[in-house]
Amino acid sequence: MTLISEHTETDTRERILVVAERLFRQIGYLKTTVADIAKELRMSPANVYRFFDSKKSIHEGVARRLMGEVELEAQRIARTPGPAVVRLREVMTTVNRMNTERYVGDNKLHEMVEIAMQEDWDVCVAHMEMIAGVIGEVIAHGAATGEFEVKDLQLASLCACTAMMRFFHPQMIAQCATKPGPTIDEMIDFVIAGLSPRTRPN
Amino acid sequence: MTLISEHTETDTRERILVVAERLFRQIGYLKTTVADIAKELRMSPANVYRFFDSKKSIHEGVARRLMGEVELEAQRIARTPGPAVVRLREVMTTVNRMNTERYVGDNKLHEMVEIAMQEDWDVCVAHMEMIAGVIGEVIAHGAATGEFEVKDLQLASLCACTAMMRFFHPQMIAQCATKPGPTIDEMIDFVIAGLSPRTRPN
Repeated sequence: MTLISEHTETDTRERILVVAERLFRQIGYLKTTVADIAKELRMSPANVYRFFDSKKSIHEGVARRLMGEVELEAQRIARTPGPAVVRLREVMTTVNRMNTERYVGDNKLHEMVEIAMQEDWDVCVAHMEMIAGVIGEVIAHGAATGEFEVKDLQLASLCACTAMMRFFHPQMIAQCATKPGPTIDEMIDFVIAGLSPRTRPN
Repeated sequence: MTLISEHTETDTRERILVVAERLFRQIGYLKTTVADIAKELRMSPANVYRFFDSKKSIHEGVARRLMGEVELEAQRIARTPGPAVVRLREVMTTVNRMNTERYVGDNKLHEMVEIAMQEDWDVCVAHMEMIAGVIGEVIAHGAATGEFEVKDLQLASLCACTAMMRFFHPQMIAQCATKPGPTIDEMIDFVIAGLSPRTRPN
């Protein structure tokens, strides 16, 4: 009985987030109200508030879900077999592709990202750390096989992610789309060069 | 007579920009009107409009001046003697320091930058290309002395600038100040590693 009720609670939480995401996409974050979300789910706003204490909490929940999908996919690629350089390229390309799909262009979720950035959310920092961690795993593997030469693993993954900001950060993806610059493949080449064994210490 | 009159015209243009910049800093870009600028200069708004056809033109003129100062200083450093790695570090540190001073924090000029980015100005693209060009000069020198190993010079300078986005881009400087990440010196080390001769082709 307890198990069923816990399951239902999780289920309702999840349904609220799915519907909220759809409405944020369709009519925009700012225009969507908690009442709209409740109405779609045929429940009372009070019931929605039992799960999320504010629209901001729903917003964070939706963001967490979207980011979680990117994290899971990055992790899956990082743990496949094969050379580290190949996996590093695939993880980076995937983060760029998934973030572009999620947040850029006509997509109304772009508005949600702007707000998250302005409000300086912990969920964003946690996501960046998670992605840096996954990239760190791949770099560690490359260091073990001799593909990479890295003194400080955590620093190397932070630098690799920072170098990719134009291609990872939703606002930068949107802003730089029409600006001169390297392609993502050229940028990944540059990052790989920075991680590769060198003839002399820098 | 023509020379004097041309000189005076340039002078008036310059005085308008100096006063506009001061007002943008003091009361913010959005709150400053062309009438405010004219009043400070004890001239009629119509006279200001003889030099700039809109507040946006004044805004662009101020931005151009601020960016021009950064460009000049970067160029000066790039052309001093000494190892390319030292100059590259100094150019990059200077761009970061000058952009931080100009656009970040309490500084009301931050508002001006936001608008310039939203409106997707050509002056910003021209500035980025100019800075990439200066960094390209330093990399070219390093390639000539064997400090760097670079196949495509233009691409290398675009990648080096893109890698430094967290430290060059006014919005990213502001947004990342409290986020985990490498220091600027660590990031420059990473970029230098990417440009350094390697034991094997990547």
